[in-house]
Amino acid sequence: MKVAGIIVEYNPFHNGHLYHLQKTKEITGADIIVAVMSGNFIQRGEPAIVNKWARTKMALLNGVDVVFELPFAYACNSAEIFAYGSICILDTLGVNWLVFGSEAGDINLLKKIAMHLAFEEESFRKYLKEYLKKGISFPKARELALKKMNNDNVKFLPNNILGIEYIKWILRMNSKIQPITIKRIGSSYNDPALESNFCSATAIRKNINNMEAIKEKMPEASFKVLVEEIESGRGPVTIEDFYKIFVYRWVIDKDFLTDQLDVKEGIENRFYKFLPASKGAQDLLSKVKTKRYTLTRLQRIFIHSVVDSKINQKELLSEKPYIRVLGFNNKGKTFLNTIKEKIEYITKLDSYVVKNTLHSHLLELEIRASQIHALMYKDYYNYLQLEYKQKPIYISS
Amino acid sequence: MKVAGIIVEYNPFHNGHLYHLQKTKEITGADIIVAVMSGNFIQRGEPAIVNKWARTKMALLNGVDVVFELPFAYACNSAEIFAYGSICILDTLGVNWLVFGSEAGDINLLKKIAMHLAFEEESFRKYLKEYLKKGISFPKARELALKKMNNDNVKFLPNNILGIEYIKWILRMNSKIQPITIKRIGSSYNDPALESNFCSATAIRKNINNMEAIKEKMPEASFKVLVEEIESGRGPVTIEDFYKIFVYRWVIDKDFLTDQLDVKEGIENRFYKFLPASKGAQDLLSKVKTKRYTLTRLQRIFIHSVVDSKINQKELLSEKPYIRVLGFNNKGKTFLNTIKEKIEYITKLDSYVVKNTLHSHLLELEIRASQIHALMYKDYYNYLQLEYKQKPIYISS
Repeated sequence: MKVAGIIVEYNPFHNGHLYHLQKTKEITGADIIVAVMSGNFIQRGEPAIVNKWARTKMALLNGVDVVFELPFAYACNSAEIFAYGSICILDTLGVNWLVFGSEAGDINLLKKIAMHLAFEEESFRKYLKEYLKKGISFPKARELALKKMNNDNVKFLPNNILGIEYIKWILRMNSKIQPITIKRIGSSYNDPALESNFCSATAIRKNINNMEAIKEKMPEASFKVLVEEIESGRGPVTIEDFYKIFVYRWVIDKDFLTDQLDVKEGIENRFYKFLPASKGAQDLLSKVKTKRYTLTRLQRIFIHSVVDSKINQKELLSEKPYIRVLGFNNKGKTFLNTIKEKIEYITKLDSYVVKNTLHSHLLELEIRASQIHALMYKDYYNYLQLEYKQKPIYISS
Repeated sequence: MKVAGIIVEYNPFHNGHLYHLQKTKEITGADIIVAVMSGNFIQRGEPAIVNKWARTKMALLNGVDVVFELPFAYACNSAEIFAYGSICILDTLGVNWLVFGSEAGDINLLKKIAMHLAFEEESFRKYLKEYLKKGISFPKARELALKKMNNDNVKFLPNNILGIEYIKWILRMNSKIQPITIKRIGSSYNDPALESNFCSATAIRKNINNMEAIKEKMPEASFKVLVEEIESGRGPVTIEDFYKIFVYRWVIDKDFLTDQLDVKEGIENRFYKFLPASKGAQDLLSKVKTKRYTLTRLQRIFIHSVVDSKINQKELLSEKPYIRVLGFNNKGKTFLNTIKEKIEYITKLDSYVVKNTLHSHLLELEIRASQIHALMYKDYYNYLQLEYKQKPIYISS
């Protein structure tokens, strides 16, 4: 059984995602497609617009065979940690290929850069340090340092960066996964315009109140799930929804950012300074923003403070994350049966006995993050136990 | 200058309150009426329906000359602590009389009981202990113990209990305040019916969505202030509004009730047990309720947990609270000028230098409670600094 792996957020599932899926099948000829998906918070430090169960449905209805969870602690984190968690899971599952979209679309170019990152050569480190000293943000400093070493023209765009990180971890883990990249088509990652039929998920989220316009950018089955979620009061969830809780935390503890993920170099003081006169999350974050702290990084600080995760990055890299099934179809079921002798995976939380400290911590944070996401649903009190009660989504196709 | 003191909540100011004010003037012939008023949370463990500044306006527009703040820590507390804070302030201000409403309307009867409480005679303590051992709630046990000693027929209704506590502290402090009680007319404290023109504040709050019906139960000036507050999105604030934050605290810390006010004897476990399947504050509290823990007591636990006050009752009784002016009219201004040589009072927080630990702690909690109350206003982010910026309300009459 040949298995292709993909790493996704589907926030929400749109035409570009369908294209990626079709290309993955076409290029690899795989029997089965396995996806690792962010849960209720995404890599950019935002809540998912609808929850992981709805997005799992979207995935299965569009041709993914089985969906696994990328735990909150990895999903809502830097490209490096996000990639580590994802590759660990795909490697454990024994997938043959990883197919990802990138702006570059050139696997050899990305591999070359990943080599530098994987084994962090002395000269690379030196350049990186020099740029960081100048007060340049980490992603930018890394980009400049890599450019110095390569003289290549790779653009450090979001999906190139993620792709490079995937390959880096494949190399470091000495994994058998073969990375393949396809060139992204249509709008770029952040482009808010809804113009082409291949617009970004960002564009869809920004136009969430214009359902007619969104409709043609998404496969029908995916659109239906989105509508059902919104009509049931379970979305759209946005970062603004969490601002009151962020303010509340500040009200009861004027040092509440201490020890939160990535809070250092006094960035917390900028939050405290601008909070009293801000009118919402984006308003506050745009004021806190500096050259060094990108908006995405600040959004992750914001979300992790609301979740009060106090994550230790070293702990995340100390072992592999748990494997949890969010949903499957018939082919996915066959795959799960094939691996169950060798790999322990979670299907239902309330009957699962956790075996190690990292997994216990990851699950605690996962449940907490999901409950906090659910606080923004209309009848939030009905969803507090969702993570315990929900069985994996099954689509018989 | 003869000064009558009153202790009020005005939540909101209604016809019964006006009657109380008129009677106070009539009986005492005082030159001036001084009120001590709860701030943004009231004794029953609920948020005030509109904030302290609006309720101060209501008081001044109806004949109170100067309003002082009963700090949150005392106001949202047991009858005993509520009364301690109030009597301390009135005693410091040197008022000649305290005029309060009671169901009994008989000062000698209340005084007799207060004597027992003030000096807690050995036999009273013994009876109290016996009843408490049987699992009876503290107010009920106290009532039964007092009945054993008196053979009187006083009913331990809310305003009788408060009156007794006022007299108790007057006695214990050896204060010169002369207590006077007037019989309450119209509906009782908790009666939710809007029938008579003298209905309870509870009835008004329960019918807050029927403004036409409320209108005739309130003096016009007071009604206008209420309407203005509601139209500006600053009310009505109810305990249900805080349920999401209460749930949030549970989500991020499954032991969040530890060390909160009055949390003992494992009552926290009942909260944890019933929370996941509850749909709101009243739903949860009605499930948590036991013989020993009255609804009012549970509401205070709820509010103090949201404020994360972790109050130490002994600290509250260790010294007198600060004196803070919320508003005044011309007569009130004269009074304030008269006392300013002898008594230090706060008029504006942002220029006030705190002098002792208790006051510093009380003010910190006051600001926090006010910010949390403000979180429920439509444009909450505009009110985070209200406590610092607001000057006392002045009505030129």
